[in-house]
This record gives sequence, structure tokens and C-alpha cells, in this order.
Amino acid sequence: MFSKETYTSRREELKRLLKGEGGIAVFIGNAEAPAQYKDNCYKFRQDSTWLYYFGLDEPKMAAVIDLDSGKETLYADDFSIDDIIWTGPQPSVAEQAAKVGIANSEPYAKLDWAVSQAIVQGRKIHSIPPSRWFNTLRLQGLGIDKPSEALIRAIIKMRLVKTPEEIAELDAAGILGQKMHTVARKGIRLGRVEQEIVGEMEGVTLAEGWGVSFATILTQHGEVFHNHGHAFPIEPGKLMVIDAGAESNSHYASDFTRTYPTGGKYTPKQRDIYSIVYDCHELAFSLTKPGTAYRDVHLAVARMMLDCLSQLGLVKGDLDEMVAAGTAGLFMPHGLGHNMGLDVHDMEDLGEDLVGYDPDQTRSTQLGLRSLRMARKLVPGNVITDEPGIYFIPDLIELWKKEGRPFVNYAALEKGYFDFGGIRIEDDVLVTADGARRLGGTRLPASPDDVEAAMENDKL
Amino acid sequence: MFSKETYTSRREELKRLLKGEGGIAVFIGNAEAPAQYKDNCYKFRQDSTWLYYFGLDEPKMAAVIDLDSGKETLYADDFSIDDIIWTGPQPSVAEQAAKVGIANSEPYAKLDWAVSQAIVQGRKIHSIPPSRWFNTLRLQGLGIDKPSEALIRAIIKMRLVKTPEEIAELDAAGILGQKMHTVARKGIRLGRVEQEIVGEMEGVTLAEGWGVSFATILTQHGEVFHNHGHAFPIEPGKLMVIDAGAESNSHYASDFTRTYPTGGKYTPKQRDIYSIVYDCHELAFSLTKPGTAYRDVHLAVARMMLDCLSQLGLVKGDLDEMVAAGTAGLFMPHGLGHNMGLDVHDMEDLGEDLVGYDPDQTRSTQLGLRSLRMARKLVPGNVITDEPGIYFIPDLIELWKKEGRPFVNYAALEKGYFDFGGIRIEDDVLVTADGARRLGGTRLPASPDDVEAAMENDKL
Repeated sequence: MFSKETYTSRREELKRLLKGEGGIAVFIGNAEAPAQYKDNCYKFRQDSTWLYYFGLDEPKMAAVIDLDSGKETLYADDFSIDDIIWTGPQPSVAEQAAKVGIANSEPYAKLDWAVSQAIVQGRKIHSIPPSRWFNTLRLQGLGIDKPSEALIRAIIKMRLVKTPEEIAELDAAGILGQKMHTVARKGIRLGRVEQEIVGEMEGVTLAEGWGVSFATILTQHGEVFHNHGHAFPIEPGKLMVIDAGAESNSHYASDFTRTYPTGGKYTPKQRDIYSIVYDCHELAFSLTKPGTAYRDVHLAVARMMLDCLSQLGLVKGDLDEMVAAGTAGLFMPHGLGHNMGLDVHDMEDLGEDLVGYDPDQTRSTQLGLRSLRMARKLVPGNVITDEPGIYFIPDLIELWKKEGRPFVNYAALEKGYFDFGGIRIEDDVLVTADGARRLGGTRLPASPDDVEAAMENDKL
Repeated sequence: MFSKETYTSRREELKRLLKGEGGIAVFIGNAEAPAQYKDNCYKFRQDSTWLYYFGLDEPKMAAVIDLDSGKETLYADDFSIDDIIWTGPQPSVAEQAAKVGIANSEPYAKLDWAVSQAIVQGRKIHSIPPSRWFNTLRLQGLGIDKPSEALIRAIIKMRLVKTPEEIAELDAAGILGQKMHTVARKGIRLGRVEQEIVGEMEGVTLAEGWGVSFATILTQHGEVFHNHGHAFPIEPGKLMVIDAGAESNSHYASDFTRTYPTGGKYTPKQRDIYSIVYDCHELAFSLTKPGTAYRDVHLAVARMMLDCLSQLGLVKGDLDEMVAAGTAGLFMPHGLGHNMGLDVHDMEDLGEDLVGYDPDQTRSTQLGLRSLRMARKLVPGNVITDEPGIYFIPDLIELWKKEGRPFVNYAALEKGYFDFGGIRIEDDVLVTADGARRLGGTRLPASPDDVEAAMENDKL
């Protein structure tokens, strides 16, 4: 948690951005999310926008900012004497409010009255889209039927640019994520079951942080993106994609990917493809600087990827034409990266296009580019991921072949790559005043030589 | 997952129990639960009643059993070709249905039509109470406004008695829980932060199972029950209560508690209280057998606890009167135990009283006994926890003193026990044909001598 002044000045800036809008801004903190039944809940995770403006990491809170008068009110319930027997002494709601510079507090149920009064008075009600089922129910109950684009835009404008104190938290989350990945790499041994490594690395982040910043991907089938089963033993000659990150106790995220040869050495074919992904990854980092649109970095990566794949004979044709046709999407059907902060896909609940696209940018419909979550012209303080990948997805290749899409050497792919899997390399990057730097501590080995050397060293 | 025959025969038995009710029984499987935003979810946990009758461990499924015709229908959506690019090849809904012996399947959205048709026809709609926010929304959307007591009672009747294949799963979950606890005990070292141990033990259960069966309690303030903060360094002379369990990949739970002296040896005062809790724990186990009401076991424990505390001079008075007055509740304000199975508090979403109380039993209003979740007369196949504890809760003691409650030596408590903390010992117990046995593998050290010997051995 940051200082009272941090939260106060953020809310003042928000009010300034919304000057002229008027009405009230309603913020719903998260409730506990039951896993099995009401009293057996998942680990509590506060709403990220709530954390940004109100900091308090407790369930069942809400707040209203009156955009006309500037008045701020926290809605939450004090603990009763019965509660305190079970919870020990707890700060009052008024004390909680004071911690983040809020002068007024009311019982939680009073929120309904405040909102209905504002509705009756015909005032504008500003809120953000519900990110959880509870919030959907709560907003329904309050009679708030649509989110406020003005509020969303103001929040995005602020959260897109990380402050020095946020960057320190992101570096700390990065260090923890790197620790997870190092434990994972050291755990790769033929015959072990994937889930054992997942458990070890998640234990690391639970020991020092909140937990994982998203469901860990650890798979010998990197070409399957939404693969959360981990029941498989580690086999020789495979590529193990590990895409995982930590969330710190202050709820900032990290997100790294590495792709390891299960036996410690890449085969020549694996090394060829890995080297392309690595070069693309380095290229993206070198192009990341203020004033450059991240969409253009994605396209530069697509171009380099196609150029290299063409040298391997897997695509053929004019490079400009292939880039324009979106041929790279066959190999990298996802975007180059996304914003990161309190959420690992930062602010995704506020709307991907509003978060990731400048007003003069429109989202592509091409496979790959259409999944780019961050296209904007970069400014210092942006935090993004740099995560190119190459995958050989048999179903997708067959689909393109059937559709007669040009430039692709389908025969070569069918003959040599249907059991290849996939490769991705990902670091977290801060846009600085004159370029970029990678977040976290010592960088995880990334070049093919460095990865092999690290795995060799792990065996000692 | 069990065999097709298991699920089929469970549903047949359910239909038999509901013979004469008529109408349709609607089952809503769980949806993904977003942690931050729609695509960043907590680890998927299926609804336990769904798992019991339908076995399929996938989100966004529903089912209807027609209690008049016996027809069973699974509602879920097949993966599209677009999905398959991201997920790899997936079984069809019809194939999923066949795995659990269901002949009919329909798209998910058809559920709304099926239910509305039944409502229009004036048929009874049976469902269980919503355990999650999503289910509340879903039932609202379907127009189902109240749960069916007949269905709830039939489910409870079946799930209360564990079958041999369930008992094997519970033993496996027990072994994993014991492994967590052993790692935790070995991790206790002065100066380490509590969260480090939490991470290590949760890593163990993630490596082999689904995760924790509930939020781990690991605290040097055992007298505070709902204490999930773990930011504290381990201090000398304290009692560390660890109450934690594993959920297996098949979603059966375990739940153990041990209380360790942080330095490896109990002080004489700690040993006095620990020995009382241990004796109560052993007494409860010795009394656990078919035909005995678990409420009476709770009361026998209360009696022994008061008898022993009276020997220490902490209470005084006639034992029968103290038991009747509920004086034990000051020291043990919770119940002796609860049912356990697919949920760690088994079926708590179906209603505590319906699950834990026989028709001729009414729930007490006394502190402690009123929190007893399992009072029923035991039958073979019941699985319960045996978890007595003694806590010295300053706020509660002061409250009782202010209220002038008799039998308690307030002066002695104030003088010597306000910084004592709390002690709990818990094992999971199966009621057998002629008595009981503890679930899991090798029992975790429980007697004070065994605990100290194990901690001594850990240091070697």
C-alpha cells in the first residue's frame, strides 16, 4: 500500500480529468469469491481500479466520488463485537478511510441509498464495467445499467503511465517471477510430471507474494495456447514452454515466458526456430521507445519472422506482400504484447480497444495482429510485454491450406513440423525517457546458448 | 473421475429417492470465476454436487433430470474450429455426456428453453441453493426463485455416506495433506516469516493435487480464528497453529490441524493445555462409532475439557452444571467437527442444519455448541473431523466477565493466559462398521512427546 498522499492525489487528478462531466462516480470493491460455498472462498483479490484509487485491500467496500462537490465517501461495515471474537481487534471503517485520505464513511448498505438518490435527481452515474459476477449483481441491484466511457478513459489515461513507486513494485514482482522461473527450469528432469514443477514454482510466489498473476502455462505442447492440464511426464526431445508470472503482495504483476529443451540441448531444428524467436524478441526490445507505436513494433517482428522463415524455406514470396497479407499470423496468431500493471493484462476489464488503441488506430481483423492488445504510440512509463512466438498448429495449417492461402510451404510444414510444438520468449519492458529497460532483476537466460549453459549448470 | 456406472447409479438412486416428487431437477455446473477480468480466472473448481452426479470437470455445463420420464440431458457447447486452434482437439459434448452415461446433449443456451417450458407447464422445478455469484445470476435468469428441499434432502442422504471409492480418494487427499503438514513443521524456524511456510506447503499440494481445500491458517495467534495474514516472523516461545488441508485432483478434501511450539519444546504451561486438548482429541476418536450422536461426542469433550481446566484452577463448580451452562464455549467457541468429502465442510452450500442435524435434533444457541456443524447420529461411511481446541480470547473473556457469567476464574485467566494464544488438534475420521479409523497415511505426530520428538528429529 502506498501513502495516503498517493491515493488522494490520484483521486484529485481523476476529478480534474472528469471536470465538466458532473454526477457521481461509483466504485465497487470486490467481494469474496466462493470456491465451494459461501465460507470457503478463493484467496481474496481486490479490484485493480479500486486498489489504484482507494488502496484498501479488504472485501465488500464501495466508494462514491461526487464529481460536482468533490466529496468522497467510503462505504463499508464496521466489525461487530461478535466478529472481533473471531477476527481479533480490527480498525474501524473511519480509520480505514483515513489511511487513504477519505474524510467520510458510511455503512455499506447506504451505498444503495446514495446511488438511488442520485438517479432520482437525474445526475449522471459513472461506473466501470463489472469484472466479476458479484459486481454484475451489485450493479444490477444499484440500477446502474451501463458503464461510463468518460470515467473509463480517465482511468486508462492515468493507469497507462506508471509512476516511480509503481515501477518499484513491478520490478519486485519481476524479481519474484524470475525466481519462480529459475525454480521451474531447475525442476525440468525427464520423467517428472509437469504438475510437480507447476507446484514448486507456484509455491515460490505464494511464499513471498500474493500468488500467480495468471494460471501458469507449463506445457510440452506450446502450440496449444489454452492448455492448463499438467498431468504429463516430461519426455525427451520436447520443447517446454513456461509462461508464468508472480503477483506481489501489493498486487503488481510480472509475466515471463521461456522455452526449454526438455533434455537440456536444443536439436538443430529447434535451435533454428528458437533463434528466430530470440532475434524477434531482441528486435522488439530495440525498437521500444517513446514515439513508436507498438503496432509498428509488432509488424517489424512479423517482417523479421517471415524473412527468417523464408530462409528456412517455410514461406516464400515478396516480404512486403507477406507482411501485408498477415502471413506471420499463421506462425504467431497472437499479438506481440500487452500492457501490464496491477493486472497482468492491464485494465482488460475496461475494454481492450480503449486501453490498447489510440483514437486514430483501428484494430486489424488479421489473425495475429487482431489479437494485439497494445498498439498505442509509446510514452515513458508504459509497461508492456515483449513476447513473440512461433508455433506450428496442425489444425490451423490445414485450415489455411484448405483455404488456399498463398506464401506458405505447406508440404514442408506437414513433413517436418507437425510435431514440433511451439516457442515463445517473453520479458516485461518499461518505456523510459529515451528507450526501454527490462523489468525485474537479473534477466532469465534467453539466448539459445545462455539457456543451454544455464541448464548444464543446473545439473552440477 | 469414477466410472460411467458410478455416475449412472448415483443418478438412478437420486431418482428413486425423489419418486413421487415429479417435475425436473436442474443442475448448474460452475462457470469460471474471474479474479481480475473475464479471461484471468481463479483455478477452475467445479460444483461439488455436480461432480458427485455428473463427474465432468469443465466449466459452463448444466443438466436436467426429468423426474417423471427419467430422461437425462447434458447442456454444454461444443468447441468451434476457432476454439480448437487455441485449445487443441477437444471431445464433443456428446462424448463428454457418454463418459458419464448420459444419452442426450444439447447446446448450453437450450437450458433456458427447457426450464421455461417446464415452468409454463406448471411442473415442479427442483434445484439446489446457489453456492457462487454466477449461480445466483444463472438461477435468476432461469426464473428459479427457490431451492427444493426434497432434492437437497435426497442429495444429503447420499453424499453423507461415502462409498469405498470415495474413501480411497479421501485417504489419498489425507496423505497429501499430511505431506503438506510435514513440510510445514520442518519449515518452522525462528525468524522465518509465516508466509514462507504457507508458500512451501501450498506448493506441495499444487504439485500433486488441485490445491488447498481451504485458505491455510498458519498463525502464532491461534486464538484469532479468521486470521489469514501471514506477514509475521516466527518468534520464540509461541504456539504455531497450522490448520490446512489438500484437495486432490479428484476434488476430495483433507483437513488437519497441529499446534507446534515455535522453539521445538512446549513450556510447562503450554504442555498442560496441549495435553488437555490432546486427551479431548483422543477421547472424541474413542467415542466415534455407529449409533453415537456426534453432538454427544462434542458434549463429552466439553465435559473432559472443563474437568481438566478445573484441575488447573481456571474454572470451578459442579461439572454437570458447567457442561449444561456451556462454560466450555469460552475456551472452545467452535464445534468439535464437521462432515468432509468433496467439500471440506461437506455440502455446506446445501444448508448446515439439513446436512448436520437429524430431524429430531435442534441446534443449540450456546457459544461453541451452536457452531457444531455435525450433530447427527453416526452411521458407517460418515467422514468427520475431530478437532477440539482451547483458546484464550481476551475480548471474549472480558465480555463474559462483564456479563457476570459463573464458573470461570477470570483473575487467573487475566493474570496468566491473555498472551497464551490457542491450541487445536485435528484429524479426519471415517466411521466404520464397528468404530472409526483415521483417514490418510501415517498419522502426523499428535501427542506432546511425539510432536517434540519429531521437531527434534527435524533439526538433524
